[in-house]
Amino acid sequence: MENNNDVFMLGGHEFHSRFILGSGKYNSHLIRAAVEYADAEIVTLALRRANTRPEENILDFIPKNVTLLPNTSGARNAEEAIHIARLARKMAGTDFVKVEIMRDSKYLLPDNQETIKATEVLANEGFVVMPYMYPDLNVARDLANAGAACIMPLASPIGSNKGLATKDFIQILIDEIDLPIIIDAGIGRPSQACEAMEMGAAAIMANTAIATAGDIPMMASAFKDAIIAGRKAYLAGPGRVLDKGGAASDPLTGFLR
Amino acid sequence: MENNNDVFMLGGHEFHSRFILGSGKYNSHLIRAAVEYADAEIVTLALRRANTRPEENILDFIPKNVTLLPNTSGARNAEEAIHIARLARKMAGTDFVKVEIMRDSKYLLPDNQETIKATEVLANEGFVVMPYMYPDLNVARDLANAGAACIMPLASPIGSNKGLATKDFIQILIDEIDLPIIIDAGIGRPSQACEAMEMGAAAIMANTAIATAGDIPMMASAFKDAIIAGRKAYLAGPGRVLDKGGAASDPLTGFLR
Amino acid sequence: MENNNDVFMLGGHEFHSRFILGSGKYNSHLIRAAVEYADAEIVTLALRRANTRPEENILDFIPKNVTLLPNTSGARNAEEAIHIARLARKMAGTDFVKVEIMRDSKYLLPDNQETIKATEVLANEGFVVMPYMYPDLNVARDLANAGAACIMPLASPIGSNKGLATKDFIQILIDEIDLPIIIDAGIGRPSQACEAMEMGAAAIMANTAIATAGDIPMMASAFKDAIIAGRKAYLAGPGRVLDKGGAASDPLTGFLR
Amino acid sequence: MENNNDVFMLGGHEFHSRFILGSGKYNSHLIRAAVEYADAEIVTLALRRANTRPEENILDFIPKNVTLLPNTSGARNAEEAIHIARLARKMAGTDFVKVEIMRDSKYLLPDNQETIKATEVLANEGFVVMPYMYPDLNVARDLANAGAACIMPLASPIGSNKGLATKDFIQILIDEIDLPIIIDAGIGRPSQACEAMEMGAAAIMANTAIATAGDIPMMASAFKDAIIAGRKAYLAGPGRVLDKGGAASDPLTGFLR
Repeated sequence: MENNNDVFMLGGHEFHSRFILGSGKYNSHLIRAAVEYADAEIVTLALRRANTRPEENILDFIPKNVTLLPNTSGARNAEEAIHIARLARKMAGTDFVKVEIMRDSKYLLPDNQETIKATEVLANEGFVVMPYMYPDLNVARDLANAGAACIMPLASPIGSNKGLATKDFIQILIDEIDLPIIIDAGIGRPSQACEAMEMGAAAIMANTAIATAGDIPMMASAFKDAIIAGRKAYLAGPGRVLDKGGAASDPLTGFLR
Repeated sequence: MENNNDVFMLGGHEFHSRFILGSGKYNSHLIRAAVEYADAEIVTLALRRANTRPEENILDFIPKNVTLLPNTSGARNAEEAIHIARLARKMAGTDFVKVEIMRDSKYLLPDNQETIKATEVLANEGFVVMPYMYPDLNVARDLANAGAACIMPLASPIGSNKGLATKDFIQILIDEIDLPIIIDAGIGRPSQACEAMEMGAAAIMANTAIATAGDIPMMASAFKDAIIAGRKAYLAGPGRVLDKGGAASDPLTGFLR
Repeated sequence: MENNNDVFMLGGHEFHSRFILGSGKYNSHLIRAAVEYADAEIVTLALRRANTRPEENILDFIPKNVTLLPNTSGARNAEEAIHIARLARKMAGTDFVKVEIMRDSKYLLPDNQETIKATEVLANEGFVVMPYMYPDLNVARDLANAGAACIMPLASPIGSNKGLATKDFIQILIDEIDLPIIIDAGIGRPSQACEAMEMGAAAIMANTAIATAGDIPMMASAFKDAIIAGRKAYLAGPGRVLDKGGAASDPLTGFLR
Repeated sequence: MENNNDVFMLGGHEFHSRFILGSGKYNSHLIRAAVEYADAEIVTLALRRANTRPEENILDFIPKNVTLLPNTSGARNAEEAIHIARLARKMAGTDFVKVEIMRDSKYLLPDNQETIKATEVLANEGFVVMPYMYPDLNVARDLANAGAACIMPLASPIGSNKGLATKDFIQILIDEIDLPIIIDAGIGRPSQACEAMEMGAAAIMANTAIATAGDIPMMASAFKDAIIAGRKAYLAGPGRVLDKGGAASDPLTGFLR
């Protein structure tokens, strides 16, 4: 049951895989396995990761057909994010950028207002801007108006593996915003990724859930399958839920009516 | 990432697919598609379904390599269930039987005590007894002692699609009972099936969730993928969950510490 | 807003307070304060507690107008429970008995089937039988037929403070059984007691939640208020819940329509 | 168990009641009963409500010792909110103002950025500014810096009665912000108000949950009790929660160990 026409668009580019893999927290040898088992077409990359140690460049471990998505991890405001984005474009040779702006390192929650500012500047410079944000409908509208290619709301605090703590508000974004909604941060298990896809998310970004698993390649494969499952369920249209009582699945044999 | 050695046993028989499909609620033409997309090795069958209309026998629509699992749907007590099981063995030529005993047709909740009695009798007659039950640890122990081949607790009332309403108590069964725990009844979406597998369930039985979906074959395929994903996640070992705060996925660029 | 006519009946006796206090886990000096702050009319008592140390009898610390409810804590089957109940009647001079039968000390889950047997024998001997049970509709019906004065389903494992893990099935008991449903075991916080009362429970039994709190009398008082609040909400009839969107509480000023 | 010293401060004023009542959606005759049964010291009021019909002024129905809290309901941006606040100060003779700024009437979600702007201007003009906001930690910090007297995060969309959909993020505000956190919007039942208070909220604002109940004065009374219960539980310090298993409440009688 493969459907090659079920794609989503980011900045005019077409993607089939709905699983975006983070590259942080892996050693270089594991990242290749993770990408392969995840069947990922997009992999995020922190600027520092790309250039810190020349003797072991993580880029060498990422398959060539994969789209690199540099992020602005560590930026505290729009100005810093814009600066990192421009550097990353030079180094990685891509227009894609994931804007991440955080004020503090305790909860690492995105600064929505600075993210809007950076998105506007970078979109005007031709970047394909993928903004990480706290799921607030008004902010998502501003990001769309600022030229974002998609909206990347958090499910729960980054690295927490706590799952869909913002579920009701992510559903509002999916219902109201006419851009791909990509769930970023907090997804801890494949079942949570599956549920987000059932709700109508366009894609899932995960990193810590895989990097902290016991068997990294197998967990990458589990997420891949769960995301595909959730997408199929969304397309198939879910069954009805009973409010009360039960309903027999089988014709009863004549004893029970 | 296929693992052909990851099997579970029922009555000495080895199964690879962890998705058991119910056949109720389908028309005969859809059942074949559902079985194929589900990649099911076991399909349940109500006695009445097998013999009601000779001009259209549902058995003709089920692939020959699939294990038929007759159920005792409609039985109100142990005696009726035993009677149906014996009839089903004659008609379907299989020792497998799913014992379902319900007192009323409003909630269709299993009668645990009568189920224990029927399990004991049928196990002594050489049946591979798969008892549907309300997830009660003491009853699961009695069923194991009575000779059950597995334990089939409900997730929520049959046909309700309400998901894992009994989650904490199913986890207790998984932790304490040394038989396959197969989740039966109430699973409404692939993400719920995935979660049950992550918890350590051996397999999932679904029927209404697929039969009431908009696109039946696609939903069958979604469940198949989700169950595989959940199994992989269980085997991989999930990542840790933070109680509070967040944790950076990426090395920070130097602005934020 | 006191309603002196809002009572519930147990064995022909009328009770106003819907908070039943467990006496286990307290030292004797705290039990009096807890009873007073809880405004409890019924207090449970384990047999061993009543007679272990003659120099400090817990009965001396319980106000005289409180109904003692001996329990059969420690009984592993109907026979032991019946034996303890008869002893307790002699010692405490009351017909009330809470039947608790558990097979093991890990999860301490009630043995429903032995509980039905003990209930039948004790009800025939004139006891006011209050059976602690795992919330199974069929078992609740059997207990009612056996002569139980109420049904006492667990919310989650005893002493766990995990709250309403069996919520959907407790609601079924409330809807289907024509006896007071008293929630026993697992209620960890006043908000959970309040929610159970909103659902239509007749009363709440708590012990560990109070005994392990930082300030025992204040937590007893908190539970008392929460139970009263939940009862009022049930009687008042809750407001409607929106499926999607919001609804203005105030007339808008003319700017926003 | 009354504690007259347990107060919270708003703009230098001391309040004992932690229940703020909304006045929208009531007819004038019910508002007085609601205020009395709620034991509210603060009641919100929309500007339009105060002056629309001279022949029936809602102010006549609100007891004189109650603090009026005019809101800016209907404002779409900071400018409109500031305008309404100034008018309200003149009409109601109070410095208190609840800033509500919403862009659309479907979800009625607050515009955090405009709310920060209005808060800054009004705080500088000497208002006691109580801003309604979407629970975003960065925004709460900005509001505190702008001079807010408290932070009023929504629990779920206004008028929805859906409860604590933003629970994890409200907990972050309580833990991180050194101002009273008052839960506003979405609280649908007393148990939810109780839970928010157990988490450490300073007060609860409710309107629709009471106005749409079957018996308005009784539901107001239920909320009052539940809020007091939750406050006591927070002060008492909750008991520990078991991760797995159970723990006997009573000494076992000797049969079960």
